[in-house]
Amino acid sequence: MTMALQRLDVLKVHAGVARTHGDVAAAEEPLEIRLNGTSFVTIMRTPGADRELAAGFLLAERIIAAADDLGVIRHCTDAQGDATPNVINVGFVPAVSARIERALADRRMVTTNSSCGVCGRRTIDDLMTGIEPMPSRWSVSAAMIASLPEALRAAQPLFDETGGLHAAALIDRGGRLVASAEDVGRHNAVDKVVGAQVLMERLPLDDLMLFVSGRASYEIVQKALVARVPLLASVSAPSSLAVDLARRSGLTLLGFVRGDTFNIYTGAERIELS
Amino acid sequence: MTMALQRLDVLKVHAGVARTHGDVAAAEEPLEIRLNGTSFVTIMRTPGADRELAAGFLLAERIIAAADDLGVIRHCTDAQGDATPNVINVGFVPAVSARIERALADRRMVTTNSSCGVCGRRTIDDLMTGIEPMPSRWSVSAAMIASLPEALRAAQPLFDETGGLHAAALIDRGGRLVASAEDVGRHNAVDKVVGAQVLMERLPLDDLMLFVSGRASYEIVQKALVARVPLLASVSAPSSLAVDLARRSGLTLLGFVRGDTFNIYTGAERIELS
Repeated sequence: MTMALQRLDVLKVHAGVARTHGDVAAAEEPLEIRLNGTSFVTIMRTPGADRELAAGFLLAERIIAAADDLGVIRHCTDAQGDATPNVINVGFVPAVSARIERALADRRMVTTNSSCGVCGRRTIDDLMTGIEPMPSRWSVSAAMIASLPEALRAAQPLFDETGGLHAAALIDRGGRLVASAEDVGRHNAVDKVVGAQVLMERLPLDDLMLFVSGRASYEIVQKALVARVPLLASVSAPSSLAVDLARRSGLTLLGFVRGDTFNIYTGAERIELS
Repeated sequence: MTMALQRLDVLKVHAGVARTHGDVAAAEEPLEIRLNGTSFVTIMRTPGADRELAAGFLLAERIIAAADDLGVIRHCTDAQGDATPNVINVGFVPAVSARIERALADRRMVTTNSSCGVCGRRTIDDLMTGIEPMPSRWSVSAAMIASLPEALRAAQPLFDETGGLHAAALIDRGGRLVASAEDVGRHNAVDKVVGAQVLMERLPLDDLMLFVSGRASYEIVQKALVARVPLLASVSAPSSLAVDLARRSGLTLLGFVRGDTFNIYTGAERIELS
């Protein structure tokens, strides 16, 4: 059994009658991310792909720009030399050390919701700071978009067992699955799938689509933009701020992708209609 | 139209054919919470019930214990005296000022994911610190639990329009809806519905059930515990850490509450079976 799942006994009740049933739940544990040995953030996540999660998170927070900035990423050890699977340290190349020190100092001065990338910014204009528009001008057929849910389901082995994991998948313009990740957290699933591409030095991801199982909130759009993915599709609804940010940055935002129907919120020029 | 919704035009695509459709999205904007005038955290939230959100968030973070700790909570004004709807200040009674100063100092020292209540704690034992077990010993029928989804739907007017809002409802043991809240964030919906009870000086909520539309993760269980709600039910899956925390603290945790079926993960003694 993968460490992303945990066995448990559950009482299944149907019409008032209960029976015991062996079940599995999505594992959720805290991961402390340290930068050059200094504690930076603690994230609740599903264990697994911790290096990818750290790389993707630091990219989304704009602390790194590419794999070139990274040194060794590895789980820490305790005083006895035993591995601490819930603490990971990220090393950096000397050239970016000053930027890391500044990020750590900023964190100490401004209190933030670390997972959302807001960092004290107040208005939509503030939130847009430093986001470059999306130049890529390829398009895909509406039929290709309709095939995304099937690709995501095929890429989500754990969800079927727990019903409690979010998924994110990178899919190329031919409809082929490039990579996927699952996590109890929507944001983490995106950070893991993008982070794996960071570590393989594959950024920018400007020829791929990102498909997510949850809602498309502002933070998910921001993570797509930082990875330079021009098309974000979701099985569920976007928020108003997600639509605003996508429109201003030229990202194609699709929602409620189910069966052969979906909604285009922004960037319709990337979708070939009948 | 409520400020929790925002109008937008969307292209609805069906079988490759698109038509323009007037739609609404759940509003999402940042809210900066200040404590005695000092910035504490910025949360992405759906506007509305900001005072309740602030009170519930501060309760969950254990910065306040009850409404008695609170002074005036109000939106700030800018240099021109105009209201700033995305910045709210929380005042406190003098007796708790020292605790607030300590919370602000801690925030500056430890970087945290503010919405999740983890705050640098590393293990399940750490996470349990300061959580008292649930003493209340009432029970409800399985049929009552089966009626919760209908009560939540009736309490969720905005969801039907956007499909993009999470809901949380407090329901009494007779199945009557006591209060509900909707938000783009799962955590916020719980903070809003609990925070309203804080402001009405109704804590502890030990004779109520909390029903949530999303998954039951560790943070949701923690928020229920701090409000002293003994029964938490969800339409979706719990995480492994949610089950662990519920078991250790004597909370009844139910999941996949749909139709007349549901799962009991912990605290079965509060459910009357046939």
